[in-house]
Amino acid sequence: MSTKEGMATADEEITDIIVQRVPYWDPPAVKPLETSELVEWSLYRALIGEFMASLILVYVSIATVIGYKFQSSGADERCTGVGYLGVAWSFGATVSVLVYSTSGVSGGHINPAVSFALFVAGKVSLVRAVLYVAAQCLGAICGVGIVKGIMKHPYDSFGGGANSVTEGYSLGAALGAETFGTFVLVYTVFSATDPKRTARDAFVPLVAALPIGLAVFVVHLATIPITGTGINPARSLGAAVLYNQHKTWKQHWIFWVGPFTGAALAAFYHKIVLRDIAVVKEALRGSFKRASSTA
Amino acid sequence: MSTKEGMATADEEITDIIVQRVPYWDPPAVKPLETSELVEWSLYRALIGEFMASLILVYVSIATVIGYKFQSSGADERCTGVGYLGVAWSFGATVSVLVYSTSGVSGGHINPAVSFALFVAGKVSLVRAVLYVAAQCLGAICGVGIVKGIMKHPYDSFGGGANSVTEGYSLGAALGAETFGTFVLVYTVFSATDPKRTARDAFVPLVAALPIGLAVFVVHLATIPITGTGINPARSLGAAVLYNQHKTWKQHWIFWVGPFTGAALAAFYHKIVLRDIAVVKEALRGSFKRASSTA
Amino acid sequence: MSTKEGMATADEEITDIIVQRVPYWDPPAVKPLETSELVEWSLYRALIGEFMASLILVYVSIATVIGYKFQSSGADERCTGVGYLGVAWSFGATVSVLVYSTSGVSGGHINPAVSFALFVAGKVSLVRAVLYVAAQCLGAICGVGIVKGIMKHPYDSFGGGANSVTEGYSLGAALGAETFGTFVLVYTVFSATDPKRTARDAFVPLVAALPIGLAVFVVHLATIPITGTGINPARSLGAAVLYNQHKTWKQHWIFWVGPFTGAALAAFYHKIVLRDIAVVKEALRGSFKRASSTA
Amino acid sequence: MSTKEGMATADEEITDIIVQRVPYWDPPAVKPLETSELVEWSLYRALIGEFMASLILVYVSIATVIGYKFQSSGADERCTGVGYLGVAWSFGATVSVLVYSTSGVSGGHINPAVSFALFVAGKVSLVRAVLYVAAQCLGAICGVGIVKGIMKHPYDSFGGGANSVTEGYSLGAALGAETFGTFVLVYTVFSATDPKRTARDAFVPLVAALPIGLAVFVVHLATIPITGTGINPARSLGAAVLYNQHKTWKQHWIFWVGPFTGAALAAFYHKIVLRDIAVVKEALRGSFKRASSTA
Repeated sequence: MSTKEGMATADEEITDIIVQRVPYWDPPAVKPLETSELVEWSLYRALIGEFMASLILVYVSIATVIGYKFQSSGADERCTGVGYLGVAWSFGATVSVLVYSTSGVSGGHINPAVSFALFVAGKVSLVRAVLYVAAQCLGAICGVGIVKGIMKHPYDSFGGGANSVTEGYSLGAALGAETFGTFVLVYTVFSATDPKRTARDAFVPLVAALPIGLAVFVVHLATIPITGTGINPARSLGAAVLYNQHKTWKQHWIFWVGPFTGAALAAFYHKIVLRDIAVVKEALRGSFKRASSTA
Repeated sequence: MSTKEGMATADEEITDIIVQRVPYWDPPAVKPLETSELVEWSLYRALIGEFMASLILVYVSIATVIGYKFQSSGADERCTGVGYLGVAWSFGATVSVLVYSTSGVSGGHINPAVSFALFVAGKVSLVRAVLYVAAQCLGAICGVGIVKGIMKHPYDSFGGGANSVTEGYSLGAALGAETFGTFVLVYTVFSATDPKRTARDAFVPLVAALPIGLAVFVVHLATIPITGTGINPARSLGAAVLYNQHKTWKQHWIFWVGPFTGAALAAFYHKIVLRDIAVVKEALRGSFKRASSTA
Repeated sequence: MSTKEGMATADEEITDIIVQRVPYWDPPAVKPLETSELVEWSLYRALIGEFMASLILVYVSIATVIGYKFQSSGADERCTGVGYLGVAWSFGATVSVLVYSTSGVSGGHINPAVSFALFVAGKVSLVRAVLYVAAQCLGAICGVGIVKGIMKHPYDSFGGGANSVTEGYSLGAALGAETFGTFVLVYTVFSATDPKRTARDAFVPLVAALPIGLAVFVVHLATIPITGTGINPARSLGAAVLYNQHKTWKQHWIFWVGPFTGAALAAFYHKIVLRDIAVVKEALRGSFKRASSTA
Repeated sequence: MSTKEGMATADEEITDIIVQRVPYWDPPAVKPLETSELVEWSLYRALIGEFMASLILVYVSIATVIGYKFQSSGADERCTGVGYLGVAWSFGATVSVLVYSTSGVSGGHINPAVSFALFVAGKVSLVRAVLYVAAQCLGAICGVGIVKGIMKHPYDSFGGGANSVTEGYSLGAALGAETFGTFVLVYTVFSATDPKRTARDAFVPLVAALPIGLAVFVVHLATIPITGTGINPARSLGAAVLYNQHKTWKQHWIFWVGPFTGAALAAFYHKIVLRDIAVVKEALRGSFKRASSTA
């Protein structure tokens, strides 16, 4: 009997983890006002992880932006720099590395829009989401601070990596681009995250770090000409705080409203349209089958 | 006995799913005129998934095309934009992300040529193939519509991302390039798709999203100079509808005939040349072995 | 008892395939003059697979080379084309896709230097190696032929994708670069190939297609300025046949001698230095352990 | 009973290797002054592996740097070369290939900073770390030597791939960039390495080679404008020895102090902050559970 149970365990492992045959089962939603986590060390470790990952993401990618503009300011060197393609890779590949590295510690959000989406979907508590967003923003501010410290002059001359609406585009266009870009990212995150684990101790399968990073990459390819690409309010805030120009602050709301709207839409699309209706159907079919096999 | 069965199951799982030792067994072909799926919710969910994935693919990649041309129109900024390399990455990486994200919902076709090839190979019914193609075309039209909404002026000035034959190339050359490019893509899809599952509930192994995306990427590298690269009739149709110029419509047939021909050839090559002859051989050998082990 | 055997099988599967705990065990070497395969359908299927994969590789990558040069010939468009970075990606990513797609059919050599190395290492018979090389060369010639057919004028004007020594480099430097570049590729192939299977029915683990493709990519980044990068005699031969210029033919030997030397060195390094000495040690230790556990 | 043990083994395999459910268990630290390995053949094989991998890494990437500068020195060809984006890919993708290929032989360090970090974390002995660093430096010197041999003139004219501080940046900024860049790399290495194995016989999961390579890639994107990017003292030493200019030697300390500081910080962050505190907590909880289940 214990053998059979052992079997079942091995079998379940394989089925569940590799094949994910039954992808439409969810743990009960986290209570939004759950506060019991506050006594867990794992929460504070997760906050350190989110802080550090946001710092690294923003340091690497903003340094790429500034360094690239520094190079191409010399007329002879116009084709030397990594270009917007290099900038897009910098954001995308760094997110991929960091999701891979921190998913075991904090779930690897590294983005307030992602934390917000997981809260909306009932996967993290309000308290955790708020603390994550705070850690991410603080990390991003420190990350841009390090860039500014290392690259003092180029940083100020080349726009500080701050997000703003490119001339020729309306505010509405920018808001739309940020919303839709974040939708693409968060939809990928939902698809890639194992639905059977709570996001609190989220186990993002290792192989999922790549599509998430690629999603960030392609959204940057599409959106750099419009807004420089936010889709991550912590990154936008960090750059705004250190660059601290009027125009940046005036348009800053776009880089919170857009991503949060896109994140909520993606949560709705993934949870309601693709998943929840199916859950009901599967449940009905399952109980039907059980009934018939018993009889 | 039940233990042994449990064993067998675990063993089969591992062998079948990870190793794919016996890759030449196929489920019976789907009946072309099968209509029983019409009452299944999963079909409608799949259609929503194909619509949304096609919309995202076309939005991201056409926005990259237009945004890139917008940037490089300023003489000073000529080398800033992501270039055709960035455009090729945009199509390829986005397809990879979307195949990864939607394979569990619809099989992740996102391309009428792929749906056609799977119909030819007896893996999806006619009704499903036709509905998928309709959803893909509608999604692509909406995707280009969003790009046009956000990037009004650049969209019209910079060719709308529409496919047409580059000056200096004949129609025949363009048709050949589209046919062969789609052949490469669809052959990769066939190789990457698990042959043991019907495409209806297709389980494209997660790791397969990468080679499929890379196939799209390299075909774009090779074909952008010739036609701008279609290899996806929904993408070509979406751009044609929104751009709506005479030249685009006049050559539009190329971007259906080429991809569908390439898809059918790939289905023939993979199914008949590589697989079906082997199936016959394996079956014969198998029955021989069974005979001798019984004796 | 049968249960235990079942167990053992499941256990072995997992250990062998996923973990590869005992990576230094090899099947007996293939007899060089083995001809029994000639009656197997799988050999002919493999030849078709090698032919088609070589055709696709050469078509996609040479079309990228020519199309890129076609674009950048217009002064205004100088920064538009995919550049040598795009060319390197074209070769690398296409190899990755094709190794992934054809490894189950032929082992996914797609390169005479790889077939030669596997023959040297005792993994394929002479007859198979020779037939593979013939199929690869024929496929490559057809692939360049299709490029020439589609891109008639640009093909002749822009060097036909043929390999030759760049001005400023000596023949010895070119030979060295080809030798070392092929060494890197073949060493990666040896490391990535599962040592427990004969190359005849080689199962290159799916995940291995990526490092092999990346190896091709980086060797192109390093070697394009020197020779345009061969490291694949079939690719060099195909371009030479269709381009058919005196200079190309005169230097053509470099693109066979270099790759074959590099391949043989990699086989020697991997087989003798890293593996065979270890095999002897492991075998000794193993027999010691068995002796002591029996006693 | 034996069945049950078989079960447990299979189960453990799956749980441990694929899921890594219990990622906070560590083998006892290696004794720093352990010398017993000196009689093991595997140590010498590992040294050969580290030597060869460092040679390949430095050959491929420095050849890319020099070859790229050679091309862009012609005014007409200014945008042809692979650019800094290509250089960043060359380092990153080559590291990925080499970690994949040599992890089974030596653990795939290929960088003195990585060996130092693993020594600090108690994962390799002092003797092994010192020998690895020596092998890496020797390999790097030989790698640059081959580049210099093949590309004599361009090598001397184009800076020899040596690291130095870009004009406009202070020494402190360069040191900071090197420190932080190495921190990012080594943190990724720690996250990607399986914590349950000693680094001596390190089994870097195959899938981990990609994020490690991407980390190298993005750090190059960010740091090339500042120092050309070292983050690997062997690479910096190899280029310095062959280029042998006063300025390079004067600043050479930065490319040892920065990477070693960053490596130590990453070891501290990963080991102490993320892991060790958790280990204590888990241990306490585990003993509590055992106690209650016994009772």
